[in-house]
Amino acid sequence: MMDSNDKGVWYKEYKQGRRFLVKIRPGESLVESIKQIASKEVIHNAVILSAIGSVKNVHLNDIKSGAKLPITSARLTFHELEGPLELLSLSGNIVPAESGQANCHLHIMASKSSGDVVGGHMQDAEVFATCEIVLVELVLEGIERHLSKSGGTPTIFFAEE
Amino acid sequence: MMDSNDKGVWYKEYKQGRRFLVKIRPGESLVESIKQIASKEVIHNAVILSAIGSVKNVHLNDIKSGAKLPITSARLTFHELEGPLELLSLSGNIVPAESGQANCHLHIMASKSSGDVVGGHMQDAEVFATCEIVLVELVLEGIERHLSKSGGTPTIFFAEE
Amino acid sequence: MMDSNDKGVWYKEYKQGRRFLVKIRPGESLVESIKQIASKEVIHNAVILSAIGSVKNVHLNDIKSGAKLPITSARLTFHELEGPLELLSLSGNIVPAESGQANCHLHIMASKSSGDVVGGHMQDAEVFATCEIVLVELVLEGIERHLSKSGGTPTIFFAEE
Repeated sequence: MMDSNDKGVWYKEYKQGRRFLVKIRPGESLVESIKQIASKEVIHNAVILSAIGSVKNVHLNDIKSGAKLPITSARLTFHELEGPLELLSLSGNIVPAESGQANCHLHIMASKSSGDVVGGHMQDAEVFATCEIVLVELVLEGIERHLSKSGGTPTIFFAEE
Repeated sequence: MMDSNDKGVWYKEYKQGRRFLVKIRPGESLVESIKQIASKEVIHNAVILSAIGSVKNVHLNDIKSGAKLPITSARLTFHELEGPLELLSLSGNIVPAESGQANCHLHIMASKSSGDVVGGHMQDAEVFATCEIVLVELVLEGIERHLSKSGGTPTIFFAEE
Repeated sequence: MMDSNDKGVWYKEYKQGRRFLVKIRPGESLVESIKQIASKEVIHNAVILSAIGSVKNVHLNDIKSGAKLPITSARLTFHELEGPLELLSLSGNIVPAESGQANCHLHIMASKSSGDVVGGHMQDAEVFATCEIVLVELVLEGIERHLSKSGGTPTIFFAEE
């Protein structure tokens, strides 16, 4: 299953776990709401299949043009968008951190009044009118998220790496 | 299953229904094509997993900066893009309206010749060269879409709310 | 299963195949990495459910405003973004070409330091810090990708068309 012949690409087959349709109400934090579901349902690994709605107070960061690895804070640009904005995409996964706690890695895209789309690595955002998410559990062992020293960003690691 | 302890987050486990690979031809309406499949296959709830292709005559709306709830027409900006544009994302779901008819809630992203991405809540768009969609049925009871008085937008409601 | 009454919309039910969680390391090609997994695991048809991370040297193309069908090279604009950029979305599918080889049709979105999102039809991109992908196999017969003479772009065709 694991591609051990080529260190450039790692992969693992997983089994489908539970599937959830989620609605988050105005004023709630996207990150806290997802963590709350993961905690209550004891979900270790999951991926977001779909997310639409509207958001405000979006906190995100992007990589500075020309930045080198590892990614450090000085190589990131931090943005705060008050909005409200249409939520066009929330992609990412839940994988346990070294502590065993659910750790979300989420990227967001949202549109301004002009229709222009802005996005990046999401720290958090608040639901404006509604948020409808489809989240599915991945059943697999031997992965966790920790800091990549070479990349400088928390990423998925496979146990055999 | 239902998170009744916290009114901020509602969720429900669903079962996987049928899965469809879809191709829509030039000149067809995205919304009408999706509704047509839902009608012919008697699909009540579904989510779009993937959509790429190209589009023209895209009608979408975004929320005006600084807008308050509820979202009213006066608080939206309406855009029409003649294009053609690359279709980069079509996210959203099909959930029955109060009438029982399939109701699509779709957000679109597409790129201009410059590479700049525009997007928003999609009213409709026409297929330019092709559109390839993966659509899966969600099997669950007790949800429908109706107008949220507080949010001002049609959203998913769970029967127990 | 096949909608043969309306030539505007084609669709086919598929069965779920294997599911893979993938991590691609810095410096690797996204397209070659995905093709490598398809080749090693003998995956004929697949769809990307989720992809986040960061990329550099992104090669993509968009359609010129006002372009007519068929899409020819002269009607496309080619962009190269050195980046690095946050990878916000990689959508698309793997379907066999006429040769039987895996053929990827992928659209990408990524954000610049400003937060502005750029995207289009992806020729290729290189992983910057990491790339986390969820890829699932679609089990179905009778589809392949070949050039659409009317559309001018390689697209999915169903055997019965």
